Amino acid sequence: MTTPDQVLDHLSRTTDQIFGRDDFRDRLASGRRLRIKFGVDCTAPDLHLGHAVNLWMMRYLQDLGHVVVFLLGDTTTRIGDPTGRNTTRPVLTEDEIDRNASAFLEQVTLVLRNDPDVLEIRRNSEWYDPMTITDLIGQLSMVTHSELLARDMFQKRLRDHREIAMHELIYPVLQGYDSVALKSDVTIVGSDQLFNETMGRNLQSKHGQVPQTVITSMITPGLDGGSKQSKSLNNYVGLARSADEQFGRLMTLNDELIETWATVYTELPREQVEDLARRAARGGGSARDAKLELAEAIVTRYHGLLAAARSRRTFLDVFSERRLPESIPELSVTDLRPTMLDLVAAARPDLTRSAVRRLIVGGGVRLDGRQHQDPLAQVAVATGAVLQIGRRRWHRLKIEHGE
Amino acid sequence: MTTPDQVLDHLSRTTDQIFGRDDFRDRLASGRRLRIKFGVDCTAPDLHLGHAVNLWMMRYLQDLGHVVVFLLGDTTTRIGDPTGRNTTRPVLTEDEIDRNASAFLEQVTLVLRNDPDVLEIRRNSEWYDPMTITDLIGQLSMVTHSELLARDMFQKRLRDHREIAMHELIYPVLQGYDSVALKSDVTIVGSDQLFNETMGRNLQSKHGQVPQTVITSMITPGLDGGSKQSKSLNNYVGLARSADEQFGRLMTLNDELIETWATVYTELPREQVEDLARRAARGGGSARDAKLELAEAIVTRYHGLLAAARSRRTFLDVFSERRLPESIPELSVTDLRPTMLDLVAAARPDLTRSAVRRLIVGGGVRLDGRQHQDPLAQVAVATGAVLQIGRRRWHRLKIEHGE
Repeated sequence: MTTPDQVLDHLSRTTDQIFGRDDFRDRLASGRRLRIKFGVDCTAPDLHLGHAVNLWMMRYLQDLGHVVVFLLGDTTTRIGDPTGRNTTRPVLTEDEIDRNASAFLEQVTLVLRNDPDVLEIRRNSEWYDPMTITDLIGQLSMVTHSELLARDMFQKRLRDHREIAMHELIYPVLQGYDSVALKSDVTIVGSDQLFNETMGRNLQSKHGQVPQTVITSMITPGLDGGSKQSKSLNNYVGLARSADEQFGRLMTLNDELIETWATVYTELPREQVEDLARRAARGGGSARDAKLELAEAIVTRYHGLLAAARSRRTFLDVFSERRLPESIPELSVTDLRPTMLDLVAAARPDLTRSAVRRLIVGGGVRLDGRQHQDPLAQVAVATGAVLQIGRRRWHRLKIEHGE
Repeated sequence: MTTPDQVLDHLSRTTDQIFGRDDFRDRLASGRRLRIKFGVDCTAPDLHLGHAVNLWMMRYLQDLGHVVVFLLGDTTTRIGDPTGRNTTRPVLTEDEIDRNASAFLEQVTLVLRNDPDVLEIRRNSEWYDPMTITDLIGQLSMVTHSELLARDMFQKRLRDHREIAMHELIYPVLQGYDSVALKSDVTIVGSDQLFNETMGRNLQSKHGQVPQTVITSMITPGLDGGSKQSKSLNNYVGLARSADEQFGRLMTLNDELIETWATVYTELPREQVEDLARRAARGGGSARDAKLELAEAIVTRYHGLLAAARSRRTFLDVFSERRLPESIPELSVTDLRPTMLDLVAAARPDLTRSAVRRLIVGGGVRLDGRQHQDPLAQVAVATGAVLQIGRRRWHRLKIEHGE
């Protein structure tokens, strides 16, 4: 049997903080199958490597026989967690929630074992639908105004003289009560959820339960070395993307992040991570090769060894000089669906349109690795897409929104 | 037909402030039967003249055909309005709420017409029992944290570094929603309820209703000229008390308050009120006679002309010197059920116990006007009760709680 300390040691690789470590050790030692609360908001998901860190930690616990309780916050989604939001979120319909829930489950089972023995699927409407106003108010009576207002985000709103709607203020109590209803033993979350999950510990104590252990996981900077991965910044690697797309995006990773990403997003042995770090530090071709290895290791996790090896070959074929450009110039684009002709003409103002047309028809132009030979075909472009013209010229597209 | 301005003029005698005066005039002009929200907490009631001010205003509107909606806040009582309270109130059982509700209705119908045509009896559990959590949260989303925290009492708590429990913070939203559910046109309240009822106006607007008019009524100092009437200060005249008791208590009224009390607690014509005021200002026997008239007018309202006249005679018989003592000395009592012997002995330490006994048996002792001739009978005493020994000696009892 895996000992509690072995479990803690395994998880420590991607753990930022643990609240309730001793309880967690006791729980693991008890031999009981633990209940791991995994609460999600039923908004349209697009999970990336950052989210997967928690999923892999949960997957590890599943492999030891513990149960992940995938909790669709259908009631709370209708309210909207104000975390990091300035405005009240639009209300979702039942249908939208159902659709988002299915999409979410599909994505999380890219990592989690989808086996009813270790994956329980619940909705918080199960307890919120039958709950009376008097019950809810009973829960609210256990919490004070100042406890809730202590939340960073609320403090920030107050400093900025922005309003806090009352449903936002009580949101943490609802998310916290989910832990009571599920009898959660442990939950693994990003640090932005720490406040809400601590409220869960608080309420569990008041209900006579041992408070859940809260593990916050490590967060890495996004591909560009800036903020953490996010859709809006387009600096992320989506879990549900093809092996080729994941590989291509990973190869744009900032060299300084190779060690961190290898630690957090792979299970490569520590010596191998250190080796990658050393090679990354040398820069140039050495760093590029380290990055190829890292990309292959990450893509392997989601698509398997064969697909990862194939993506590596494709990538190298596309960038057939077998070296990555040190820096890729940006190309501003205002049209979201330009023709190839217009796109390439914008990148090569030095060429006539006839010359550009010949270049395209001759197969010399690729967009995100894919050849486009019809000069008049419209292509969908996005910020971050790479336009390759000939063998040595690359442009990274940047969408500029028109007035 | 009574015009809107006549109604406003009639009510103005006991009105402190009106919020939504123009809407109220329009409503009265519409000829529609208005709905007057009269919300009460289902705690043990002991209504006094101060409460009756609102009741008489409502009674006037009933007489014009409008409907008083007597709303028992059974759900909100279970929560507890934090108004003026430092501590969370004890939770009442269903039974206690039912008992208090009956007692309340009995007392308010001392003034209000108990006729189903103009008195509708409702409970707010009618809408709170079937309300879902999601509905409630929808209501909460219409209100911001700062709007609620603006309440005086909450500001005071913050200044005093006292906690505000979350159920207390949202209480005004619940009381406010009652106005939406009842489609309240007008409510007549003490100024301490202004915040909660303004929240009602706020929510009604958000629900597309014309906001209720909120009328706050005048508050007078208690009998002793200090704080407003309250049970704990024992400076009040209870509505449900006997004519004799009301009369006796009214005769202890501070002379300076004769004009105010005549204005707020009677419907005597203004000239007569002014006459009473002039006579009160003269002091002595003149003030005493003015007070006798005032007491008779007030007691008449609750017990009728005959009973009031009888109480006046009884009062004068008891104080058979036909003059009230200028000041009555206090007598401290620690035992709540002393024997007459002990009570009188405490008042007359100069007499032997045998002399005291003879005094009692001889009929020379009265407690609150009632003769007691058994020296060993235990009597129930309360602060404010008057012990008369012989013809010229009075003591006002004051209960001192033992250690």
